[in-house]
Amino acid sequence: MTVPYDTGLLESEIEKQYLKMKLDAETGGYHLNPDIEFSRNLVRGLMKNKKRYGYESCPCRLASGNRAEDLDIICPCDYRDQDIAQYQACYCSLYVNDAILTGEHLLFPVPERRPSRMQRAKNNIVKQFSPVSAPTSQILVWRCKVCGYLCARDEPPDLCPICKAKKDRFEQLFVLVKS
Amino acid sequence: MTVPYDTGLLESEIEKQYLKMKLDAETGGYHLNPDIEFSRNLVRGLMKNKKRYGYESCPCRLASGNRAEDLDIICPCDYRDQDIAQYQACYCSLYVNDAILTGEHLLFPVPERRPSRMQRAKNNIVKQFSPVSAPTSQILVWRCKVCGYLCARDEPPDLCPICKAKKDRFEQLFVLVKS
Amino acid sequence: MTVPYDTGLLESEIEKQYLKMKLDAETGGYHLNPDIEFSRNLVRGLMKNKKRYGYESCPCRLASGNRAEDLDIICPCDYRDQDIAQYQACYCSLYVNDAILTGEHLLFPVPERRPSRMQRAKNNIVKQFSPVSAPTSQILVWRCKVCGYLCARDEPPDLCPICKAKKDRFEQLFVLVKS
Repeated sequence: MTVPYDTGLLESEIEKQYLKMKLDAETGGYHLNPDIEFSRNLVRGLMKNKKRYGYESCPCRLASGNRAEDLDIICPCDYRDQDIAQYQACYCSLYVNDAILTGEHLLFPVPERRPSRMQRAKNNIVKQFSPVSAPTSQILVWRCKVCGYLCARDEPPDLCPICKAKKDRFEQLFVLVKS
Repeated sequence: MTVPYDTGLLESEIEKQYLKMKLDAETGGYHLNPDIEFSRNLVRGLMKNKKRYGYESCPCRLASGNRAEDLDIICPCDYRDQDIAQYQACYCSLYVNDAILTGEHLLFPVPERRPSRMQRAKNNIVKQFSPVSAPTSQILVWRCKVCGYLCARDEPPDLCPICKAKKDRFEQLFVLVKS
Repeated sequence: MTVPYDTGLLESEIEKQYLKMKLDAETGGYHLNPDIEFSRNLVRGLMKNKKRYGYESCPCRLASGNRAEDLDIICPCDYRDQDIAQYQACYCSLYVNDAILTGEHLLFPVPERRPSRMQRAKNNIVKQFSPVSAPTSQILVWRCKVCGYLCARDEPPDLCPICKAKKDRFEQLFVLVKS
């Protein structure tokens, strides 16, 4: 009997990684697909790719095997958040939004947003910045001197939400914005 | 017997939501009021408002029922962090700071900071930006290409604290600041 | 028998603080040293310093006892993230990166990066900003009106990763950057 991708992954390892990804998702304001078997299968695919290529490239896309070329499809991919915003889920449907989670929206296939290889090569050269032609103003931004976290508010937070450093570890910046 | 707001909420649902809000608060550097019964009652109020209006407006304020008009008082409200900075707690005392949690400060009533309806309408028109008159400099900011997280530091972090993408998923920006 | 630093700390308090710091580290994308006894001893040192000075100054450095002067070495110190980026671990080796955690890299002593007292005094005066000489562009940044979180992406996230406010609580800014 041939088992094509017997990568020697234990179910317990997959479960552990699934739980880790679920916790990471939830604490960051994201959600995994509530269909647990479906999500665990995608986690299995990610772990297989990790073994094959050395990085967790998207289980629903063909990786080149060259990390630099596949950076944009290492999970979570560069397209996840745009797909969730437009289609309620990422290309794989591993990540979904609240509307899917609660059953308010149904899950439909998400079209591929990744540009072609040629287009990607071109995008790396062309800057996506647009020139500034409007008058400028400034906003007050607080920077955590420990971890570099930035937030725009009147006072720094009591604790840095990222590294938990206290209020007096923040310094102020005046960031320029278009008026 | 009349039960005025019998919204059919189960105690188990309230407990679940309370625990979710507590975890969200703690992982983000905030704290719920340590008086558990008090906090659970506010969570109950939030869930009642969610059923009434479709959104979790502040249980200590009168909502209009129009989401667009009540956006600033959907919990956590736009005023929470300023109130915590000045009074150690939010208007409801649902969110408190470390000093209250440890008993270092006593909890006092927090005055209403929300502007009047007329003032709010005006604020939406008047920009709070101030014009720039000083020379400008630049700071190095890293942007996570996956989720858009920004931090100002010499090197990108090993893992994005928000989406857990690795270091090589960050790109650098030079953000302009007032010198 | 003399116990020089009998600060009356209970093992259960140290364990609780160790677990809190571990959770804070993991949810923020950091890791504590996997040698649990080693990490707990550093946590003990931090708690001793908290009792001695009133703040958790680095257990591997000599504190002045003046909070303002020691701000940069309150744990996590201002140098942690640069040390992890360069040496895989902080000066104390309390915080380590993934490569140390998985055994891919070995842990070596981390040299002191903190400037001398005289240099620190000087740094506080000299701004680290460099003047801007290039043409400027703008990038789209979303600001959470509740907590001030900033992220640079096409659409705001469904939930603020910090305070869990919904998408419609974000406002857009156009931040100026060097092209």
